[in-house]
Amino acid sequence: MIIVLKPECSKEQLIAFKENLADTYGVKVNTWEGVHSTVLGLIGDTTTIDIDYISAQDIVDDVRRVQEPYKKANRKFHPEDTVIELSNGTKIGDGGLVLMAGPCSVESSEQVCEIARDVKASGAQILRGGAFKPRTSPYAFQGLKAEGLDLLKQARRETGLPIVTEIMRVSHIDMFENVDIIQVGARNSQNFELLKELGKLDKPILLKRGFSSTIEELLMSAEYIMAGGNDKVILCERGIRTYENYTRNTLDLSAVPILKSLSHLPVIVDPSHATGKSWLVESMSMAAVAAGADGLIIEVHNDPKRALCDGAQSLTPEQFDRVAKKVYGLKNYLTENE
Amino acid sequence: MIIVLKPECSKEQLIAFKENLADTYGVKVNTWEGVHSTVLGLIGDTTTIDIDYISAQDIVDDVRRVQEPYKKANRKFHPEDTVIELSNGTKIGDGGLVLMAGPCSVESSEQVCEIARDVKASGAQILRGGAFKPRTSPYAFQGLKAEGLDLLKQARRETGLPIVTEIMRVSHIDMFENVDIIQVGARNSQNFELLKELGKLDKPILLKRGFSSTIEELLMSAEYIMAGGNDKVILCERGIRTYENYTRNTLDLSAVPILKSLSHLPVIVDPSHATGKSWLVESMSMAAVAAGADGLIIEVHNDPKRALCDGAQSLTPEQFDRVAKKVYGLKNYLTENE
Amino acid sequence: MIIVLKPECSKEQLIAFKENLADTYGVKVNTWEGVHSTVLGLIGDTTTIDIDYISAQDIVDDVRRVQEPYKKANRKFHPEDTVIELSNGTKIGDGGLVLMAGPCSVESSEQVCEIARDVKASGAQILRGGAFKPRTSPYAFQGLKAEGLDLLKQARRETGLPIVTEIMRVSHIDMFENVDIIQVGARNSQNFELLKELGKLDKPILLKRGFSSTIEELLMSAEYIMAGGNDKVILCERGIRTYENYTRNTLDLSAVPILKSLSHLPVIVDPSHATGKSWLVESMSMAAVAAGADGLIIEVHNDPKRALCDGAQSLTPEQFDRVAKKVYGLKNYLTENE
Amino acid sequence: MIIVLKPECSKEQLIAFKENLADTYGVKVNTWEGVHSTVLGLIGDTTTIDIDYISAQDIVDDVRRVQEPYKKANRKFHPEDTVIELSNGTKIGDGGLVLMAGPCSVESSEQVCEIARDVKASGAQILRGGAFKPRTSPYAFQGLKAEGLDLLKQARRETGLPIVTEIMRVSHIDMFENVDIIQVGARNSQNFELLKELGKLDKPILLKRGFSSTIEELLMSAEYIMAGGNDKVILCERGIRTYENYTRNTLDLSAVPILKSLSHLPVIVDPSHATGKSWLVESMSMAAVAAGADGLIIEVHNDPKRALCDGAQSLTPEQFDRVAKKVYGLKNYLTENE
Repeated sequence: MIIVLKPECSKEQLIAFKENLADTYGVKVNTWEGVHSTVLGLIGDTTTIDIDYISAQDIVDDVRRVQEPYKKANRKFHPEDTVIELSNGTKIGDGGLVLMAGPCSVESSEQVCEIARDVKASGAQILRGGAFKPRTSPYAFQGLKAEGLDLLKQARRETGLPIVTEIMRVSHIDMFENVDIIQVGARNSQNFELLKELGKLDKPILLKRGFSSTIEELLMSAEYIMAGGNDKVILCERGIRTYENYTRNTLDLSAVPILKSLSHLPVIVDPSHATGKSWLVESMSMAAVAAGADGLIIEVHNDPKRALCDGAQSLTPEQFDRVAKKVYGLKNYLTENE
Repeated sequence: MIIVLKPECSKEQLIAFKENLADTYGVKVNTWEGVHSTVLGLIGDTTTIDIDYISAQDIVDDVRRVQEPYKKANRKFHPEDTVIELSNGTKIGDGGLVLMAGPCSVESSEQVCEIARDVKASGAQILRGGAFKPRTSPYAFQGLKAEGLDLLKQARRETGLPIVTEIMRVSHIDMFENVDIIQVGARNSQNFELLKELGKLDKPILLKRGFSSTIEELLMSAEYIMAGGNDKVILCERGIRTYENYTRNTLDLSAVPILKSLSHLPVIVDPSHATGKSWLVESMSMAAVAAGADGLIIEVHNDPKRALCDGAQSLTPEQFDRVAKKVYGLKNYLTENE
Repeated sequence: MIIVLKPECSKEQLIAFKENLADTYGVKVNTWEGVHSTVLGLIGDTTTIDIDYISAQDIVDDVRRVQEPYKKANRKFHPEDTVIELSNGTKIGDGGLVLMAGPCSVESSEQVCEIARDVKASGAQILRGGAFKPRTSPYAFQGLKAEGLDLLKQARRETGLPIVTEIMRVSHIDMFENVDIIQVGARNSQNFELLKELGKLDKPILLKRGFSSTIEELLMSAEYIMAGGNDKVILCERGIRTYENYTRNTLDLSAVPILKSLSHLPVIVDPSHATGKSWLVESMSMAAVAAGADGLIIEVHNDPKRALCDGAQSLTPEQFDRVAKKVYGLKNYLTENE
Repeated sequence: MIIVLKPECSKEQLIAFKENLADTYGVKVNTWEGVHSTVLGLIGDTTTIDIDYISAQDIVDDVRRVQEPYKKANRKFHPEDTVIELSNGTKIGDGGLVLMAGPCSVESSEQVCEIARDVKASGAQILRGGAFKPRTSPYAFQGLKAEGLDLLKQARRETGLPIVTEIMRVSHIDMFENVDIIQVGARNSQNFELLKELGKLDKPILLKRGFSSTIEELLMSAEYIMAGGNDKVILCERGIRTYENYTRNTLDLSAVPILKSLSHLPVIVDPSHATGKSWLVESMSMAAVAAGADGLIIEVHNDPKRALCDGAQSLTPEQFDRVAKKVYGLKNYLTENE
């Protein structure tokens, strides 16, 4: 950690501050005096240093970490890739490509089972589906809730596909006991209380990047889960909020190689929510695989009773089948030509 | 609500879609045929229409609301200003200026009581202080929690100042029973489960705008609380995340007159968190008052044992006293010269 | 074009406004009266309507285009892909992949010729290199200017590679006469006077997206060039400015399929400037090709006298060789498996 | 300047790099060896060091300036406020408040003269008006150009008000000889060639912040002008591009005190373009004055022939009169109560 002091910092303040740092954090403090300012370099484990406390000092002009503030999610301390294995043997992060697919909202037994059969036939290994839905409007459909979870489990029994679904509240954790992967949505990406509780489980957590979370903040949210003892975190890039509004969000594919470089955790991409447009899902899925993603999570919808509704961002089973073929083909090509 | 259809929409699809809309939502549907596309106009109460469902239709190119999606927070339906009165008679939103001040984190009885006395002497009407702290790092100090709440109440007893403090979790609501105003922080601004539960209380809620929430999303979050029956919502602009990183966030002061125009709820400003720099608090406080804010929430710190720490964004009691004098003076001038 | 009027608009204002619209723009105006507001629909060619003038009307609440504001760049009116052919037969936009590579700045004859030979050997079809350099600081090296152009032409003579280089000023156009492709940089993306003059040439223009340009603004800048008569525009996605600062900019790969859908112009990607980090160039190049890019423009540096300097974002010739092999391989795979 | 080296940097590379730095830039290089990385501190004048060159080194992980990269615009080296005086005695930056007002586009002699008389009567000291208009669409009205300049001069003769108007091209500089203040618009804020030429003049330049320019980039653009010898730069905050689209841009009022702290140049605010909504101009003008702005530039329109058109962002002369009275009153209050 490097601390730039203000020019007006006195000798006495400097000495007091250095002692304070050494005492409080057990670090060694080096001093370098420039023309305009004095710079301190802290040596030792600075992960636990509260950067806000440091920058809050009157005499401090700027603070910069040299070391990343996350430890358990950090590849430097865990060079090997984390591979997450589900009960049915599906592995995430082992160098292969995992497809998670299913409806935005679980609506009925027929709907979810039919989609599950379809996406399985197309090669999806995991069924996604929303039972609890975070909606901007309190008047919008909020999901089938517990009943939705039951329907997902029914689809799992019928198809053997493990299920991933979103949690929105600590008190629901018990209900999610039989869920294979618990998803934390973008809006709860910094719901630290929820993350802490999920850290106490022994279950994979799919953690989505917040709309406006930096890559480092996403890793810090993963660290919250891991600090509690749960190492099974899957990171998910799903687009960030920018000024461009042709797409719902701006898919940041550079986050894929960056996350895989900074961390040992698996990284997947959600092209459906990132773009909000179904016709962009194929090209962004291909790009995500080429960028090195470990998996994709894709919305697939099929409701014969609402034939018009294919979803602004949802694929039909036929469209998904085409995307699945293309991304698996691409993945095979890339693996063979590495 | 205006719906632009795709050029390829067939006559049959058009008729089916219009019937579907009329049946599902009870609205009247007008059609206007242009050269390149057909446009539908929905007449009636469109607040409850799920815009996602509409834009999910294959034949829909674009959807735009004419009516705002929020009702209870909407000034159109409630032209009168909402005024929130606390037990000690302090009013928020009555045309006056309310100052909320206190430490970022509650640290000790001496600290919080001394600051409370100081800010009260300077004219603050409400004591703020963090007991539960949302921190990016799981290794950072997370607040004194329940003990912090007790210390705030102690300071209230000593000074008579009502208290405002942040909640982070539904299960903590009972603990906040004797808190005067419950704060929802920026990271929980779209924690809908928490908002729903707060909607069941009869207690003022200070709702901060999320880092990347639009003005409409902030109002929709207020609507979540109000939809549950709790009308006592105070909106708080606290800076949004932009590419500019000289300040921690970019304070969006135009949000003040906009929120006051769109909604009847009181609007306050947090210059401390918005800028992250104590030397900007005075000028941004003045600007916020000039922009029409109903109040300010300002961090004030004073810890003789950590004399160096005045907070990157916290004012000393002396600095706060100067700011308080200036903003009250300005408010008086503005009121007299309206 | 759809115009939502304010509720307070009177009958007389409505009639006067409609007549004004019909007279001024020769469009037919349809009226649809809703409960809260009246909506007008304009039928006819609305491309030339000044949306600012419309929204400037006191009685107008909101205006939305149904038709895109660009014509010549619009795929609707030119369904066929534009293919740009250079003097040596290289084609851009014909379904193949074009690699442009070379140094950030042209520094010397040896440097640029050696790099040109290297990148040609690796399969690059076009040599890029900066003679005039837009630098944030007036004190930074601004390029070799005219001498730099000469060195690029020398490298062209030696290798046969066509050259692309950036222009920064209208008065330099004469100097660029023998340049194969003139580049407009991100900072000049809305330098409309420059775009107008380039529109008078019969020469390919590589137009970079501005840091904060929307996709529509990029197409409007292309329209400026095309309105003058020059149809040879190559669009270039090079990252946009967002809050994320791990990368210099955020590469928006969804812009590739979107631009190719909205326009018939070729679309290339600059992974070097987008990310600012050489180690991300390979993965983002692969992703760009998978997303459907017609080409890539990549920085390659090789300076034996400054052996330490490989460029934060520049590849060595060896690294470029690897990237070129990989992207051509991928492109072949994709073409065969379309 | 602080340079963090990569862990893999060898002893030989370190020594070579340090010698290179000392030789090339004449700075002293201090070394501090941490556990994970080595940090260099450069002592001396680092303003002219090319940060891109440094970060381009293979062995460099991160570079951070301690010293600002601008010199002539820097308050550290010029503590006194720059005051710009116009021919008629109007002073900008002397602690008073300057109002610049006038039409977006100059349309006719009657229009501009009438508005000039009106705004003068309301207390404006400078007439603004667009002769050359940067428009997103090549098909939109581009201003009256040279004729527009003549009309502005005519209005100056009639009213005595100095004029400020926007330049878009180097070759137009001669035409602007008799203009009192030359404006550089947001889109040309990093048109370095234009800035360089304006640096050769002895005439005030009103430099607008780019849509996506950081505060530092704005100051670097000012530095371009000042490096050429022209110290008469007026900085103008006019809103930045963010995800929020209720307003056209997000007015960043914290930029006012920041710019005045970092630089000695006058700082004005453009509430009309920032918000794009005339009803927000009053509140944002008041806020800007409270934040410490030296002036405001406000659009005022009055066209009897197009009675409907008051401008989405333009005030009527009556509205401007009210705003002028309010901001001057506020300024007086603030000056008396400093």
